[in-house]
Amino acid sequence: MEKAIRPMRPKVYASRRFHFSAAHRVYNPAWSDEKNAEVFGPCSHPGGHGHNYELEVTIAGVPHPDTGYVMDISHLRQLIEERVIKQLDHRNLNTDVPFLAGQIPSSENLIVALWHQIQPLLPEGVELVELRLWETPRNCFAYYGEKA
Amino acid sequence: MEKAIRPMRPKVYASRRFHFSAAHRVYNPAWSDEKNAEVFGPCSHPGGHGHNYELEVTIAGVPHPDTGYVMDISHLRQLIEERVIKQLDHRNLNTDVPFLAGQIPSSENLIVALWHQIQPLLPEGVELVELRLWETPRNCFAYYGEKA
Amino acid sequence: MEKAIRPMRPKVYASRRFHFSAAHRVYNPAWSDEKNAEVFGPCSHPGGHGHNYELEVTIAGVPHPDTGYVMDISHLRQLIEERVIKQLDHRNLNTDVPFLAGQIPSSENLIVALWHQIQPLLPEGVELVELRLWETPRNCFAYYGEKA
Amino acid sequence: MEKAIRPMRPKVYASRRFHFSAAHRVYNPAWSDEKNAEVFGPCSHPGGHGHNYELEVTIAGVPHPDTGYVMDISHLRQLIEERVIKQLDHRNLNTDVPFLAGQIPSSENLIVALWHQIQPLLPEGVELVELRLWETPRNCFAYYGEKA
Amino acid sequence: MEKAIRPMRPKVYASRRFHFSAAHRVYNPAWSDEKNAEVFGPCSHPGGHGHNYELEVTIAGVPHPDTGYVMDISHLRQLIEERVIKQLDHRNLNTDVPFLAGQIPSSENLIVALWHQIQPLLPEGVELVELRLWETPRNCFAYYGEKA
Amino acid sequence: MEKAIRPMRPKVYASRRFHFSAAHRVYNPAWSDEKNAEVFGPCSHPGGHGHNYELEVTIAGVPHPDTGYVMDISHLRQLIEERVIKQLDHRNLNTDVPFLAGQIPSSENLIVALWHQIQPLLPEGVELVELRLWETPRNCFAYYGEKA
Repeated sequence: MEKAIRPMRPKVYASRRFHFSAAHRVYNPAWSDEKNAEVFGPCSHPGGHGHNYELEVTIAGVPHPDTGYVMDISHLRQLIEERVIKQLDHRNLNTDVPFLAGQIPSSENLIVALWHQIQPLLPEGVELVELRLWETPRNCFAYYGEKA
Repeated sequence: MEKAIRPMRPKVYASRRFHFSAAHRVYNPAWSDEKNAEVFGPCSHPGGHGHNYELEVTIAGVPHPDTGYVMDISHLRQLIEERVIKQLDHRNLNTDVPFLAGQIPSSENLIVALWHQIQPLLPEGVELVELRLWETPRNCFAYYGEKA
Repeated sequence: MEKAIRPMRPKVYASRRFHFSAAHRVYNPAWSDEKNAEVFGPCSHPGGHGHNYELEVTIAGVPHPDTGYVMDISHLRQLIEERVIKQLDHRNLNTDVPFLAGQIPSSENLIVALWHQIQPLLPEGVELVELRLWETPRNCFAYYGEKA
Repeated sequence: MEKAIRPMRPKVYASRRFHFSAAHRVYNPAWSDEKNAEVFGPCSHPGGHGHNYELEVTIAGVPHPDTGYVMDISHLRQLIEERVIKQLDHRNLNTDVPFLAGQIPSSENLIVALWHQIQPLLPEGVELVELRLWETPRNCFAYYGEKA
Repeated sequence: MEKAIRPMRPKVYASRRFHFSAAHRVYNPAWSDEKNAEVFGPCSHPGGHGHNYELEVTIAGVPHPDTGYVMDISHLRQLIEERVIKQLDHRNLNTDVPFLAGQIPSSENLIVALWHQIQPLLPEGVELVELRLWETPRNCFAYYGEKA
Repeated sequence: MEKAIRPMRPKVYASRRFHFSAAHRVYNPAWSDEKNAEVFGPCSHPGGHGHNYELEVTIAGVPHPDTGYVMDISHLRQLIEERVIKQLDHRNLNTDVPFLAGQIPSSENLIVALWHQIQPLLPEGVELVELRLWETPRNCFAYYGEKA
C-alpha cells in the first residue's frame, strides 16, 4: 500500500525567485579613497555601478492536506515583493535602504540583512531555510542562518 | 603521492535533468467551486493550465574504479524516461497519472510521489538524495525524503 | 563632431518578454479521435497538456529626444499584460480564449492571432516588427506580419 | 560534387557576447525633478540604480579559406573588451563615460553610441551588422545602423 | 470580422534546437605546427578540445489549415536527429564526419556544411531560412544561405 | 536593536562559476576496445568528443568587518583561473592534464581531482565546501569532500 511507505508528514522545500536592479559602491567610509581604491578596485569607483540581482528564497514545511501547499507561493511572492523587494528595486544600496544603513553593501552583508527582513514575515509552521543571491550570473551568495 | 591525500572512497553526487509538459488544475474535490476559486485563484480555473516542468534527479555513490561512474548517467536517463517521465509527459496530472490518483496535483505532492516512484528503480549502492522540480523558471520545489 | 556621423533619426528595436502558463490540446474537431491521435500523437491526448510560454514582443521606432525611449517599456509591459497576457495566463487555449475561438491552438495559429491583438494597442510612431513565442525552451515560433 | 552546390563565397554571421555592470539614472537635465519623477518613475530615483548588461556584437563576412574564420573571435573579444567594455564596466553611465556625455543614458541611446564606437574598430572585409543589448533578461534593445 | 484583417496565408517561422557534444582542433594541414599554434593559439592544441554545441534550425511556411502546423516539429526533430545530429554527436569533427572531410572544422565552415545537409531533407513548401550554432554560450554563428 | 538579533559571526557562502572547453574520451586502458565500446557506448569513440564544462566553486566563511567579504571574489577568480582552469581549457583530459594522469576522465573523477587542486589554494579562514561541475546543461556532478 503506497500510503504505508510514504512518510506521514513529508518535509518539502519551496523556492521562489525575485528580481531587483540596484546600484552600489563597495566602500568603507573609515578608509581613505586611496585605500578603498586599492582594496576594492573598480568595485569602489565613486560613481558606483549596479547589478540585476536575483534572490531565491527557500522555505520548508509539511504540505497542508487540504491544499497540497507548504504555503501558497503567490502569497509568498506578494509578501516579499511588497515588504522587501520594493525597498531595493531601482534603489542605491549605499544610500536608499534603511535596513542596510551603516553597512558596506557587499552581497555577503546584504544577504544576512535580508534574512532578518524575511524571517519574521513567514507564517507559523513555515521555516526559512536558505537565501541565495546572484549579483551576476557567475557570482552567487548563500546564507542559511548559521553562525560560524 | 596524490593517492595518499585522496579519500579512498569519495562520495560523489550526479544529477540529471528531465523535461515534461503537462496540464493540471489545483483543485480540492471536497470543496465547492467557490471555495476552490477563493483559495487557489487562477490556479483553479476549470479548464486547467499547464507547465513545462523540469525535474532534476540527484543520486550519490562511490565512483566505480573500472568506469569512474557512480552510475552510467545514460542508463539513469533511460530508466527514468521510460518508467517515470512517459507517465507524465503530455498528460493531465489530475486525470491521467495513476500514481497521483486521489491527490491534489500541487508540485509539493507531485515531488513526494516522484520520490516513491524513482527510489525503487535505482541499483544497489546508488542512493537517491534529492529531487528538484521547477514548475516555472521562478518556482522550484525540492524533496530529500525527510519527515518533519 | 560625433553628431555628424550619427544618423539623425536612428531606428532602434526594443523587446520585452512576457510569461504565461496555459493548457492546450492540439486537436482538429473535424476529425475523428483516431485521426487526431494518428496525426498529432501525444499532443492530442484528451486530457490535454500545457506549457510555460514565453512571448517576446519587438517594437521599433526613433528614440524620442526628450526621453531617449522608443516607448516607455514599462508602459508596453502594462499594456500587454493587461490586455493580452491576462486572457492567456492560467487558461485553457482550446476553451477559454475568445480570440482563439474556432482555431486549432497550435503555436503557429496562436502567434498570428497575437499579432492581431497586439498591433492595434501600440501608439503612433511605434511599429510592431516581431513576435517570438517559445512553447518550450527548445521550440520557438516567430511572426513578422508577412503573407506568403 | 558538393563544391558545385556550395556558394563560392558564403556570407556567415559571427556573434560574441560581452558583459558589464554599470549604474545609471534615466534623467533629463532640462526638466525639473518632479517632471523626471513623473515621466521616468523609479528609473529616475536620484541615487540611481544599475544593471548587469549583456551586449551581443554580430559581424558578417566570408570565412577566410586559410582559417575558416570570418575574423578570429578571440581577437574581436580582446578588441572590444579593451576599447569599449573597459569604459563601461563598473562605471556610472551618467557621469563616467566620455562617449555618452550629454545624452540620456537610456538603452536606446547607449546602443546607438556603441555602434559608433565599435564600427571603426573592425578590420576591412568585416561588417558590423547587429548590436543587441539586454538591460535585464526580459528587456532587450537592438540596432542595425538604420535611419528611420 | 477577424478573418478580414488576417492575411490569408501568413508566413510563420518555426525553430527547433538540437544539442551535440563534439571534439575539434582548429588546424590547417597546409601549415607547420608552429604556424598553426601562432595563428590559432590554444584552439590548435594537438590533443584537441571540445564543445557542447547547440544548433537552432529555423524553417518557414504557411501553417496548414488542417493542422495549424508549418511542419510537425516532432517530425523535423526526428529527421534532423537521425540524419544530421547522429553524425556529429560524441564525434571528432576533424576525423569522424564525412561531410566535413577536407575542411577546417571552424564553426563558420561547419554551419555552411550543415545548411547543405539539412536543406535537401525538408518537404516541399517548407523553406530553410536560418541556422544558428552556439559553440559556447557566448559565441554564436549564423547562416542564411547567402553569398557575399 | 538590529545588531542584537544578528548573529555576531554569520557564516556566508560565496560561489563563482568558471568555464572551460575540453576534449575527453571515456576509456579504460585495461580493457579491449570492444569492451570499452560495450560499456561506454558513444562516450568511448576513439576520436573523442568534448564539452563546455561549467565549474562552480563554493567557499564559506565569516565576512570580514572591514570589507564585508568572505574573500574578494575577484581574487578567487584570478587564483583559480591561473592555477586550475588554465590546465584544463582547450585541452584533452586524457592526455594533457598532469593531475588527471592515470585516471579515467569521467566527471566524477575530475571533480574529486579538482577538489585536491583547489583546496590548498584557499587562504586561512576560508573553507572549500562544494564543487559543482556541469558537463552539459542537463548533467551535473557535485563533491563536498566526503568519504562514503
